Amino acid sequence: MQITILQNLLEANEKKAAEIRALLRTKKIVMFNLISSPGSGKTTLLEKTLPLLTKKYRVAVIEGDVETDKDAARLAKYEVPVSLINTKGSCHLESVSIEKALNAFDLDHLDLIFVENVGNLVCPAEFDIGEDAKIALISVPEGDDKVMKYPLLFRESNLVILNKMDLLPYSDFNQQHFYEDLAKINPTVTTLEVSCKKDQGVEKWLRWLELSIAAKK
Amino acid sequence: MQITILQNLLEANEKKAAEIRALLRTKKIVMFNLISSPGSGKTTLLEKTLPLLTKKYRVAVIEGDVETDKDAARLAKYEVPVSLINTKGSCHLESVSIEKALNAFDLDHLDLIFVENVGNLVCPAEFDIGEDAKIALISVPEGDDKVMKYPLLFRESNLVILNKMDLLPYSDFNQQHFYEDLAKINPTVTTLEVSCKKDQGVEKWLRWLELSIAAKK
Repeated sequence: MQITILQNLLEANEKKAAEIRALLRTKKIVMFNLISSPGSGKTTLLEKTLPLLTKKYRVAVIEGDVETDKDAARLAKYEVPVSLINTKGSCHLESVSIEKALNAFDLDHLDLIFVENVGNLVCPAEFDIGEDAKIALISVPEGDDKVMKYPLLFRESNLVILNKMDLLPYSDFNQQHFYEDLAKINPTVTTLEVSCKKDQGVEKWLRWLELSIAAKK
Repeated sequence: MQITILQNLLEANEKKAAEIRALLRTKKIVMFNLISSPGSGKTTLLEKTLPLLTKKYRVAVIEGDVETDKDAARLAKYEVPVSLINTKGSCHLESVSIEKALNAFDLDHLDLIFVENVGNLVCPAEFDIGEDAKIALISVPEGDDKVMKYPLLFRESNLVILNKMDLLPYSDFNQQHFYEDLAKINPTVTTLEVSCKKDQGVEKWLRWLELSIAAKK
């Protein structure tokens, strides 16, 4: 009984995600779903990215947060439309909320939407929200064992960003171990090493975004 | 319909949690529920703690993990009974799984059980598992904004450990901001600053454990 209901919820979510994907394709909008633990640097990466990206693209952000508007407030100053979804205790975004958030945007005048999912490595990977690609962030201080511990996210992602590279000298993070695990779980995934604090890797990230947008348009 | 079922699930969970709590009280066993993001240092803290604590107490660990036995394997070498719960995609532990895990232990010869919950700041805070206290870990590189973003956990916790204090010099973490937020959400909570890497704060943590065990026995 409970399993059937879960199945129905997942099916309803996927149906709505497919509708969103079709809508965004019609509007020629590319949507990326950023997923990480709390505090891995999703918002900070967007803070670095938006001023550079908005020179070339019309960008909007959907912010998923359990109950505050803290991240949305941080991004609002970059003069992009930000639509906030407070999940009220839920640990992930679902496509029905994304559909509502999209209604706040003028979809005829957008090229790109970033979705910053709720900070969580488990459930956000399970729920399709109609995105073009999932982007996983993992930060150096979280440790090199996360790929195998949360394999669904790393399997589903098109890009894995290893963030906070500036903390590598103060950490036991074993890069070889990390990349070997990733090669087992998702051998073709693109990876980027970034330090938002030291401005390392940001250009490569922008280049990846531009190529991905061009490929989808 | 869906809300009713969620309500029933939560009620069933709480009923089972109450049974577990009563059982552990009868057996004079204290149980702590460790909750944090992935990679905040729950397992490392236990690795530091177990060799010291087992000189005085009979300790067991319940490990919650989405699908691997990595953390359980790390702890098994400390010669304590470890019962692993693979949640198979679920992002938190529930009391029905804890009950099964307890069956693996000889409850007549135990003083203390640590539960290492699934790495997640959201749902583990919502599910009572019959513990005597929730202990929240947050690590410095995750940032000083986590209390307000995940308030339920910090409201529910009896102890908040600020971990990876060795990374403070390389981080923008604002301690004053963090403690001010915590004072708003949970004014009476005990806090400890720990660096497992530098062995800082471990003695105070052991002292807190000893006092809490003594108070519950």
